Amino acid sequence: MIAAPRAEDSAPYPRTWGRGVQRLKQYGLRAHLLGALLRLRVPGQGLLLVMGGWSLPELDNRGGRLEIGSCGLFSGVRLECWKDATISIGDGTYLNRNTEVVAAESVRIGRDCKIARDVIIMDTDQHALPGAELIVRPVEIGDRVWIGARAIILKGVTVGHDAVIAAGAIVTRDVPAHGIVAGNPARPVR
Amino acid sequence: MIAAPRAEDSAPYPRTWGRGVQRLKQYGLRAHLLGALLRLRVPGQGLLLVMGGWSLPELDNRGGRLEIGSCGLFSGVRLECWKDATISIGDGTYLNRNTEVVAAESVRIGRDCKIARDVIIMDTDQHALPGAELIVRPVEIGDRVWIGARAIILKGVTVGHDAVIAAGAIVTRDVPAHGIVAGNPARPVR
Amino acid sequence: MIAAPRAEDSAPYPRTWGRGVQRLKQYGLRAHLLGALLRLRVPGQGLLLVMGGWSLPELDNRGGRLEIGSCGLFSGVRLECWKDATISIGDGTYLNRNTEVVAAESVRIGRDCKIARDVIIMDTDQHALPGAELIVRPVEIGDRVWIGARAIILKGVTVGHDAVIAAGAIVTRDVPAHGIVAGNPARPVR
Repeated sequence: MIAAPRAEDSAPYPRTWGRGVQRLKQYGLRAHLLGALLRLRVPGQGLLLVMGGWSLPELDNRGGRLEIGSCGLFSGVRLECWKDATISIGDGTYLNRNTEVVAAESVRIGRDCKIARDVIIMDTDQHALPGAELIVRPVEIGDRVWIGARAIILKGVTVGHDAVIAAGAIVTRDVPAHGIVAGNPARPVR
Repeated sequence: MIAAPRAEDSAPYPRTWGRGVQRLKQYGLRAHLLGALLRLRVPGQGLLLVMGGWSLPELDNRGGRLEIGSCGLFSGVRLECWKDATISIGDGTYLNRNTEVVAAESVRIGRDCKIARDVIIMDTDQHALPGAELIVRPVEIGDRVWIGARAIILKGVTVGHDAVIAAGAIVTRDVPAHGIVAGNPARPVR
Repeated sequence: MIAAPRAEDSAPYPRTWGRGVQRLKQYGLRAHLLGALLRLRVPGQGLLLVMGGWSLPELDNRGGRLEIGSCGLFSGVRLECWKDATISIGDGTYLNRNTEVVAAESVRIGRDCKIARDVIIMDTDQHALPGAELIVRPVEIGDRVWIGARAIILKGVTVGHDAVIAAGAIVTRDVPAHGIVAGNPARPVR
């Protein structure tokens, strides 16, 4: 259940390996128990923590692949993975309450990302425009990206390492590494 | 509980009458049971399906009229209907998780609409501006309209047939038939 | 549990002191019982009402101070108060469903405010930008302010008395008394 320590482990959250007691104190027994329960449903070797309540995140896996590292998932999180699609979430990343990921083909989220509550990330509009085909374009989110509360990341968007997405931003275009975007539609700030 | 087949039935969702077994397979027993339970509280002859969880949608009917066709309502949907107001939802339309409709006078939603999660549709601001009267203006949404996740449709808005409202759009003005709008406030795109 | 009548009591909601039976009729026994239960966890002398469901609002008090007057809090409301921080909510104010307040230092909400559902108010981004310190700037909201559904009020914002924040607005700058703002980012209207 607990991965071996690795050299690159530097983020305090939630990868303080070898310091199990400290981690238990910080996140509580409930987070560990629910995380272990959730791990039964997701293959992987990392440590899952489930925070924010007694209910498990919803895994709506319709025949795809969930690659979930050592992550923190809050109650109300929902991962919807279509047939043959992939949802990948790197070590040290957390998804706060009610955040939702929909992958028709591929949504990849890097390491040590901070994803706030009520965020939606999807690689498809889920429906075709009248007279057109369903659009599916993979979403890729780099490492250490911070996504503010209630932002929406739409199909085809690539977000570079260390970028910041402001609360409430609706992101329809790529965000470069270290970029900061805000607004609806999201535009660079500063 | 199940309406007779009609000639104009073409949408696959959820009106595949006469193919009960297929529909049962597609949407599951739970959706049918909960739908039947909800139908006890809403007059109508169509088939209601309740999807996405065990809890029934909330009907906060304060003395108005709910005219709900053969629809799919997801868990967390909430219909608030004021005294003498009308909420009307056409056949083949679905309202996804946590979507909310508030009618002080009239909210009419057409047939075969796809309404995503967390959408709010209201025909009133629910409070008056200081020194002014409460504004109530009916909302009318056409057929085959597609409303993206977390959009808000405000008082007085008419949305034409086949229009598309982008995710996160705040709609304060009419949308013509076949129109596509996005942003806060929502503006035409393309 | 019920405060003595005061001369300045004029708002109908929920401070119709001395008219307990009428209030009981209007808001129901459940709202009073849950409110009394919640009062056990918040010091104060006012009357708390809990509306919209059987579940209590979540008080995530990490060593700060909650100063809650005679208020109405709906189910799903969440108050997160950091160490030595203050959340203050004036008499006659209500917070509708799923509204969330996060105070790292101070969030003060005045009297007789109408705060709609899904609103987020926070005096901190909760995380520092890369290479910078965590920003915390108190939020102050005046009396009789009306905040529309799903608005977000961010760090450092002061909202004057009688201001109106439109549904879905993302407020990053001060709003003057009697001002009306809308959009993302929020700008004055009219």
